[in-house]
Amino acid sequence: MPTQLHKMTWEENKEAIERSKVVLVPVGSTEQHGPHLPINNDAYCAEKLSLAIADAAAQEGLEVAVGPGIVFGVSGHHMGFPGTVTLSRHLFEEVVYDVGSSLLKHGWKTVVFVNGHGGNSSALMAAIERLAHDYPDAVVVLHEWWILTGDKLREILEVGLFHAGEGETSLSMALGQKVLEDRMKAEIPVSHSKFISFNFLESVIKVGLPLPPIHKITKSGVVGDPTKASRAKGEAILREVLARTMILLRELTEDKLMVGGTNQHN
Amino acid sequence: MPTQLHKMTWEENKEAIERSKVVLVPVGSTEQHGPHLPINNDAYCAEKLSLAIADAAAQEGLEVAVGPGIVFGVSGHHMGFPGTVTLSRHLFEEVVYDVGSSLLKHGWKTVVFVNGHGGNSSALMAAIERLAHDYPDAVVVLHEWWILTGDKLREILEVGLFHAGEGETSLSMALGQKVLEDRMKAEIPVSHSKFISFNFLESVIKVGLPLPPIHKITKSGVVGDPTKASRAKGEAILREVLARTMILLRELTEDKLMVGGTNQHN
Amino acid sequence: MPTQLHKMTWEENKEAIERSKVVLVPVGSTEQHGPHLPINNDAYCAEKLSLAIADAAAQEGLEVAVGPGIVFGVSGHHMGFPGTVTLSRHLFEEVVYDVGSSLLKHGWKTVVFVNGHGGNSSALMAAIERLAHDYPDAVVVLHEWWILTGDKLREILEVGLFHAGEGETSLSMALGQKVLEDRMKAEIPVSHSKFISFNFLESVIKVGLPLPPIHKITKSGVVGDPTKASRAKGEAILREVLARTMILLRELTEDKLMVGGTNQHN
Amino acid sequence: MPTQLHKMTWEENKEAIERSKVVLVPVGSTEQHGPHLPINNDAYCAEKLSLAIADAAAQEGLEVAVGPGIVFGVSGHHMGFPGTVTLSRHLFEEVVYDVGSSLLKHGWKTVVFVNGHGGNSSALMAAIERLAHDYPDAVVVLHEWWILTGDKLREILEVGLFHAGEGETSLSMALGQKVLEDRMKAEIPVSHSKFISFNFLESVIKVGLPLPPIHKITKSGVVGDPTKASRAKGEAILREVLARTMILLRELTEDKLMVGGTNQHN
Amino acid sequence: MPTQLHKMTWEENKEAIERSKVVLVPVGSTEQHGPHLPINNDAYCAEKLSLAIADAAAQEGLEVAVGPGIVFGVSGHHMGFPGTVTLSRHLFEEVVYDVGSSLLKHGWKTVVFVNGHGGNSSALMAAIERLAHDYPDAVVVLHEWWILTGDKLREILEVGLFHAGEGETSLSMALGQKVLEDRMKAEIPVSHSKFISFNFLESVIKVGLPLPPIHKITKSGVVGDPTKASRAKGEAILREVLARTMILLRELTEDKLMVGGTNQHN
Amino acid sequence: MPTQLHKMTWEENKEAIERSKVVLVPVGSTEQHGPHLPINNDAYCAEKLSLAIADAAAQEGLEVAVGPGIVFGVSGHHMGFPGTVTLSRHLFEEVVYDVGSSLLKHGWKTVVFVNGHGGNSSALMAAIERLAHDYPDAVVVLHEWWILTGDKLREILEVGLFHAGEGETSLSMALGQKVLEDRMKAEIPVSHSKFISFNFLESVIKVGLPLPPIHKITKSGVVGDPTKASRAKGEAILREVLARTMILLRELTEDKLMVGGTNQHN
Repeated sequence: MPTQLHKMTWEENKEAIERSKVVLVPVGSTEQHGPHLPINNDAYCAEKLSLAIADAAAQEGLEVAVGPGIVFGVSGHHMGFPGTVTLSRHLFEEVVYDVGSSLLKHGWKTVVFVNGHGGNSSALMAAIERLAHDYPDAVVVLHEWWILTGDKLREILEVGLFHAGEGETSLSMALGQKVLEDRMKAEIPVSHSKFISFNFLESVIKVGLPLPPIHKITKSGVVGDPTKASRAKGEAILREVLARTMILLRELTEDKLMVGGTNQHN
Repeated sequence: MPTQLHKMTWEENKEAIERSKVVLVPVGSTEQHGPHLPINNDAYCAEKLSLAIADAAAQEGLEVAVGPGIVFGVSGHHMGFPGTVTLSRHLFEEVVYDVGSSLLKHGWKTVVFVNGHGGNSSALMAAIERLAHDYPDAVVVLHEWWILTGDKLREILEVGLFHAGEGETSLSMALGQKVLEDRMKAEIPVSHSKFISFNFLESVIKVGLPLPPIHKITKSGVVGDPTKASRAKGEAILREVLARTMILLRELTEDKLMVGGTNQHN
Repeated sequence: MPTQLHKMTWEENKEAIERSKVVLVPVGSTEQHGPHLPINNDAYCAEKLSLAIADAAAQEGLEVAVGPGIVFGVSGHHMGFPGTVTLSRHLFEEVVYDVGSSLLKHGWKTVVFVNGHGGNSSALMAAIERLAHDYPDAVVVLHEWWILTGDKLREILEVGLFHAGEGETSLSMALGQKVLEDRMKAEIPVSHSKFISFNFLESVIKVGLPLPPIHKITKSGVVGDPTKASRAKGEAILREVLARTMILLRELTEDKLMVGGTNQHN
Repeated sequence: MPTQLHKMTWEENKEAIERSKVVLVPVGSTEQHGPHLPINNDAYCAEKLSLAIADAAAQEGLEVAVGPGIVFGVSGHHMGFPGTVTLSRHLFEEVVYDVGSSLLKHGWKTVVFVNGHGGNSSALMAAIERLAHDYPDAVVVLHEWWILTGDKLREILEVGLFHAGEGETSLSMALGQKVLEDRMKAEIPVSHSKFISFNFLESVIKVGLPLPPIHKITKSGVVGDPTKASRAKGEAILREVLARTMILLRELTEDKLMVGGTNQHN
Repeated sequence: MPTQLHKMTWEENKEAIERSKVVLVPVGSTEQHGPHLPINNDAYCAEKLSLAIADAAAQEGLEVAVGPGIVFGVSGHHMGFPGTVTLSRHLFEEVVYDVGSSLLKHGWKTVVFVNGHGGNSSALMAAIERLAHDYPDAVVVLHEWWILTGDKLREILEVGLFHAGEGETSLSMALGQKVLEDRMKAEIPVSHSKFISFNFLESVIKVGLPLPPIHKITKSGVVGDPTKASRAKGEAILREVLARTMILLRELTEDKLMVGGTNQHN
Repeated sequence: MPTQLHKMTWEENKEAIERSKVVLVPVGSTEQHGPHLPINNDAYCAEKLSLAIADAAAQEGLEVAVGPGIVFGVSGHHMGFPGTVTLSRHLFEEVVYDVGSSLLKHGWKTVVFVNGHGGNSSALMAAIERLAHDYPDAVVVLHEWWILTGDKLREILEVGLFHAGEGETSLSMALGQKVLEDRMKAEIPVSHSKFISFNFLESVIKVGLPLPPIHKITKSGVVGDPTKASRAKGEAILREVLARTMILLRELTEDKLMVGGTNQHN
């Protein structure tokens, strides 16, 4: 398994920057994940996934570093459950900016934030846009496994992907997380709206709705069905994520993303 | 056509709040839209679309108000083109918050931000989440026509939806915007990446990439093909947007969205 | 009537910057103006006045552009009346700064903020001072019709100039605003203080007093006597404002204000 | 001469709050005042004037306290001259707020900021408005001698009131300031503008212009003519200020200003 | 070894809060520590020390929890060495505040921040003071091993305690850190000042001096002599820290620190 | 006695900068100091001590200037006592920064903040670190008499140094402060903790504890025993402070502190 930057001396960090082009930064959260997963689950998965990516890249002859992880995220909606630690959205954005900025100042040219928590996305992207603006020679990318493989998840999963449900629990299993399988139970709130579905396989019309405090819609903290989770499903997801991430890493090392693309419009 | 709140006296505003349940707030931008569209295009379309929604609702017996519009957005990437006015992301978020907060203090219970500019989305959503947190009895929603009808746009459009291209120009035509048709020309940057497509009909693998300064990828400011635009396509889009928005308004007045749904996960 | 920048394409904006020296930016508010005026009155008047100035300048052979308007101002004291939208003072200052800064970056050399709302003045001036500091080659000016013609207003008006009273209603009439004349009524709070007068023609000793919440001193939102208003009085004010503004524009184009004068002392 | 609060113990402060209704807070600056006045001139005059007011009030049987003074102001435009100390505008506003807030928390009901520096005015007023909002039972007033007696200054002075000129130097003399009379010399920049006059007796049309860096319009730091200053003129100003301030203090103790008046309009 | 909160589910966190009175929060840094220690050294030691404290407490029958650690600190002065990640001082203070606040909201009554990095101290204390103010029923304490045992360190160490030198390296050894012993070398800058000593055993007169950028005073990043370090010395330090921390924990559980003491004066 | 900068003209300030190398900036507070000392005590002592230092330096042939003093500090914990004025910690830090920055911009090369209030220390040091970073050619130092002479204070004092007690009252006497000797009385809270002592001569184990609101631990505002104070003790402290400060000034003028030392570790 590849060495992480924070476990190396500064001289070893210097050598890694000279050798390698890309650094992965795991970004997670410390928030409730139902009765069966530890509250570090997003931070744990982001780190393990980053290491798996670096490992797969090494097998293809590409050295990719894994930087120190950000373990606190935007988790205000989970504060109804003990253990959750949340940063305000602006504060989290600043932390991401300062961590990214520290790495870029030392000479890293490509930073991939490997995110494990959906609630972080918009603030993460805001920080990434500021980093891209302030370090115009660098490439900064947001990697989210459920976005990267969205189309494949429908094939792999029965119920879908919510919070601490089938998809997330499966991936956690594949990444070696401690899962209290005897405490797993499904809790899927009923929706009477065409704009809200708690089943990923159902199609919905989309509008932007703020997330409600989770303890108002579930007792266990689970939104989904972890009993449908399995290590096999998790490994299928992981294979897909790794395969697509290898394409990304090759493009990054060949500067194909350097022109500047966009996933926004209007 | 329905009266807009800012053209009414305070007594008339008071009556409107008592009569109606929902207020639409147009949100746009003032930024370059190629050689054929005025720089107010997003603000113009957001306002006209809001009025069309209110009109359609009235025909169904539902009174919906149109509030004063926000005409400046997050447009830093377009600053290479004269005329563009941009607010910083945080500033824009604060403006949306203060406008929404003013309306909610006066007694509006449901606020729908009708957005016309993709660059506003994440900051708008951040403001909406803060409003939802600070006014727990209210419902605040983000309405974006290209998200609401994403699946249908593939059917209607040939090339797709970028900036000032086929989709946006078509809708502008349908909404009565002044379009300099003789100046329209296509400009679609070439992509060598599997993660970047400037053709909406092509499928791509998705990661988060910051938008490059637009003047680095296009001379005209257009990213897309406005020569494929037509009023007929615009009207097809508009019909679809109105139909789905009527579903949304009915759900809002029947409190179906009150439980609090989510478009996020993990 | 002159074309406004936001109704032009970016290429037309570019040409306007090359041709013209001065851009006017209307600044208003969205706040209660009594039972007889719409809540957009300050924004409406600032825009119409800017267009009238540009028109008068064109007749003298001077091209002056009208930029996109700022329609939300500092209106916290009017929040007791439905419809009012207020930005916090600091937020408003930032909006003015960002709008002015966007224009100056595109090459405008002279920016005149045409203000229609007294409550905006100090924050506007703060933004102008920051713009002047950050763009030392530019000239940025605050234009307020009631300051510019203060001496003449005493001649034209019977009761004076407060909020939604004789002076403001007259000018609104002259600028084509929709006025509900049958709802006009006078409401002038009584003052027992030598430092407070609600009659502009009375002389007072001046100290700085914060504005009270308006709903504590008036039921209608009017502070003054709109029944004394007339289109003729409004036109007399307008003529005076235009005449003096022409002097200002000539000085601006002849760089007479470039040396940097002051309206402050001590 | 009355005792100042900061020279008293906390028990004596407690007694003063119980006995007295009004506290004066001197606000000055530390900035260049030409070759003949110390850089503490605004702070010095604000303090001495406050003491003179308290003294005059005591003679009328009214106990008024003098609080600790704020000696740094908004003086960025004077930074071209050594010795000047400036706070940013926002920082100065916060300092005024915190000082006023501390006094109001201890039970003072009426706070009069006695300002000696024109550059402070708008930020001071911003702080006062916030204090009035946050302490609705209190009365907070801005006292500026040149505003309070503006009409009389024209009678007393030959050239007028600028910076370190006839008016300010005269008052400084009357308040016992150390004046280097042999270093006094006039320096009045020439104006070609109808909107700028450096002679207070000339009438001008008024617009808002940001103050230029003072070292760009004067070598000595003086803008005006201190050679026209005299102790007699200063005493005439002082008499007028004291007389009008006594009216103010009587109104304050009789709650006539409590209704909340306004010196703003529109 | 005791379980850490972030490795537990939310239900287990809930039980821990009910059972235990005290939570320890490790606070470290990610910064260069010479050629022989990994850049995570402060974060590593803070976590291991917290676990050792909890273990020792458990042996005395006192359950103490270990919360999720803060691994980024104030390390700007080490940015001359690759690998260092720094948060701005204010940002770090906010992170500590949000983490502490999250824990206190869930019902923890006593929070002990176990700090491993001297550069964090003042910002940490600032956050602690704000937490104490906002949660008046809670006790929040800053634990720093080198302060707690300052007097004993002189007895145990030959050269002293600087950065990555004898003391810190010894403790790292005792806590199981990976130490590259063959890369250890001494680097002690010479001081000509009575106010600066790089030898802890020498007495100095103390004034407050800002830390210089470390790469200006050392090539290796070491300030001190790690060759004098030994596991035995580290264990002696650890024994002392644990013994005194047990006294602290007993006082905390007996509410002896509740009255509020002070380590400040004047 | 040496002239203070704020009592000089700007030309005299200019000459002082050219002649002298070091400027002292007194920093105090305006907060309760028991029934026997005025609330300006920290500000008074910081100023008088600065003047005494400049005087002593002059006798050694070294010209040192005394700059304008900062009289408001971080005093939130004393707000239970009337008269106390407090700035928030961040605000105070900004004020120190702006004052220091103004001086450094005018050409001062060495700034010594002479602090009289322990509550200011961490925010003062934060400002000093920012000044040192932004003005790398300057030397900025924090001078605190109780730190500079900590070891000697144990010899001179019987009970110790707290707030308004033996040490502080003695020094105030030596510096000519008005002391109400008949109101002096001891008030020393009892501590049951090994970590809290209100007697400076007792040794304690040290952890970081936030200061409690002072009115919760004392009625008089005194924490200590002022009845043990004497002018003779104060003069002994003063002699020691001056002697050590002379060493500091010599080092400063000989650039011995320029290399950048540290009083922090880890």
